[in-house]
Amino acid sequence: MKTRVLLALSLALSMGGAFAQKKAKHPKNIILMVGDGMGVAQIYAGLTGNHGHLNLEQFPVVGFHKNQASNAFVTDSAAGATAFSCGVKTYNGAIGVDADGNPVPTILEIAEENGLATGLVATCSITHATPASFISHQSSRSLDENIAMDFLKTDIDVFIGGGRKFFENRTDEANLLDSLKNRSYQIANSIEEVQAVKSGKLAAFLADEQQARYSEGRGDELVKSTEVALDLLKTNKKGMFLMIEGSQIDWGGHANNTQYIVEEMIDFDNAIGKVLEFAKNDGNTLVIITADHETGGFTINKGSTETGMVEGKFTTGSHTGVMIPVFAFGPGSEAFAGIYENNEIFHKMLKAYKF
Amino acid sequence: MKTRVLLALSLALSMGGAFAQKKAKHPKNIILMVGDGMGVAQIYAGLTGNHGHLNLEQFPVVGFHKNQASNAFVTDSAAGATAFSCGVKTYNGAIGVDADGNPVPTILEIAEENGLATGLVATCSITHATPASFISHQSSRSLDENIAMDFLKTDIDVFIGGGRKFFENRTDEANLLDSLKNRSYQIANSIEEVQAVKSGKLAAFLADEQQARYSEGRGDELVKSTEVALDLLKTNKKGMFLMIEGSQIDWGGHANNTQYIVEEMIDFDNAIGKVLEFAKNDGNTLVIITADHETGGFTINKGSTETGMVEGKFTTGSHTGVMIPVFAFGPGSEAFAGIYENNEIFHKMLKAYKF
Repeated sequence: MKTRVLLALSLALSMGGAFAQKKAKHPKNIILMVGDGMGVAQIYAGLTGNHGHLNLEQFPVVGFHKNQASNAFVTDSAAGATAFSCGVKTYNGAIGVDADGNPVPTILEIAEENGLATGLVATCSITHATPASFISHQSSRSLDENIAMDFLKTDIDVFIGGGRKFFENRTDEANLLDSLKNRSYQIANSIEEVQAVKSGKLAAFLADEQQARYSEGRGDELVKSTEVALDLLKTNKKGMFLMIEGSQIDWGGHANNTQYIVEEMIDFDNAIGKVLEFAKNDGNTLVIITADHETGGFTINKGSTETGMVEGKFTTGSHTGVMIPVFAFGPGSEAFAGIYENNEIFHKMLKAYKF
Repeated sequence: MKTRVLLALSLALSMGGAFAQKKAKHPKNIILMVGDGMGVAQIYAGLTGNHGHLNLEQFPVVGFHKNQASNAFVTDSAAGATAFSCGVKTYNGAIGVDADGNPVPTILEIAEENGLATGLVATCSITHATPASFISHQSSRSLDENIAMDFLKTDIDVFIGGGRKFFENRTDEANLLDSLKNRSYQIANSIEEVQAVKSGKLAAFLADEQQARYSEGRGDELVKSTEVALDLLKTNKKGMFLMIEGSQIDWGGHANNTQYIVEEMIDFDNAIGKVLEFAKNDGNTLVIITADHETGGFTINKGSTETGMVEGKFTTGSHTGVMIPVFAFGPGSEAFAGIYENNEIFHKMLKAYKF
């Protein structure tokens, strides 16, 4: 009996270990979704405008990040995204470089080195600060053509956004679209062409520079691009790193335009819904939703979840310095609870992958 | 062997159950701390003013509540606190009554019925909307004298705040201080008198109506009151329910006064530090930190964690409708992650107690 009990205890403990291991199981896929300029009020404006609900409500883990840049209390999108992509606090304007201007490997590059599929999707030029910080190393966000060139130094599988001109009509007269084709990228110039791609590598340019606003012609291209990116990247058995940006929530803030914020927020949340659906079916995907900073000093002064009316007010046409919410779902999501610095998000993602 | 393996599996499963039970262990004590008017920007103004850190950063669980009142998108403190205290969405101005005006048992009353010690601490009149909603049932928050009378319908162990005049100098000429003494309450009229009380019941009035602002004479009375309340209530072996309000963060917002917000926020966080210290030592205490609503449409436009400078701006002298962060620590804290309605906080607390 004694032996049997010991055996039982031993098995019980090893199963306890198995339970613990299952809980701490690391994800194969990490999908980071950045709503640029999306503070708490932007989220709640979207929720109110969407009659009281968002897909974001399904996320079981919530945290906050502190987003001060190395040289400024109020961060810009470049320093904010580089904190996520490289794990360092850097100066405003920096793309994938530290406070001293030195290149730092990005989570996308590290994922790629480890054999994972990688992708970037945005509703702005793919060379804009947020996507750029995941694939490029430049001293300034304004160097769009250099940033475009950096795409060719990687083996990224899928990128979808605007910014065709920085690849095609360059001051150095190089045609990077040709270079992309030589490297087996399929080039898509419309959402229909994006949707026609069923396998292989994809470079998609949905605008010459910036895409239109949701209600001014872009429509649900972010949702459709998200679906295609997931379909293409999921075929890699080792997993994926995908960054998806809802770029124009920020622009609604800069324009002090509540309706612009509401429609971009709902569009971004629709993309969140697609990612969440994928993650639920897959069971092996960590999804993280956050923003780089708040834009506009936006507040919700009146509203109605019945009619979807939101009356917002603004204190600035610029960014503010408030902490930013983080929402997480899937294996490894527990690490994103609490309050921490923005660059910790890189380290938490890296730890989750367990490379 | 088959029997042995089955026994092992059975034991393993029962131990898995034990693990689960340990994780879901219910707290003996619940301490709810409400920073009135404390939105995300108010918290971050306090953190910045306090040179980059708050005790709040130690909370492992974060969530958000949606705080719309039954009759308004933007809630007041009465409907907001009644959602927490009674679990119902009600109309602005309602104290412990539902949307139809019917009294609803409060979490404090339920705790008392179950033999727990109970207490209320505030930096405003103890008859003010937030504390009142935990102990009184009145159609309107303006009925301070009725609310004072309701304190005598309960057996609350400790209350510390302002509002002596609503007990002593009443239009009905009743002297409720005499009634309190008859019911064995020790009456304290200063923080020194509060600190002198080492056991038994305590009714403390630190102001005739409202206490002073932190920097205008109140000083660290909230921290000291919190320590005394914990010392008196912890002697009940069945546990406690204690609500502590940082009342004047809201008043800083109404006054559009950033410095007022910063100093009240830091004072409230110092009280949070004392509660957290108690909870860590005790191991059996669930602490929940939240607010009823945001006040002022407050944003942080400039700042410095080095100097503690905060430059805030405001969009209103009133409340706004944005979702409000929730922080939780201790057994049962997991339930406070995610996004949910404000009245769910009552149900989550009740479920945690397991009465």
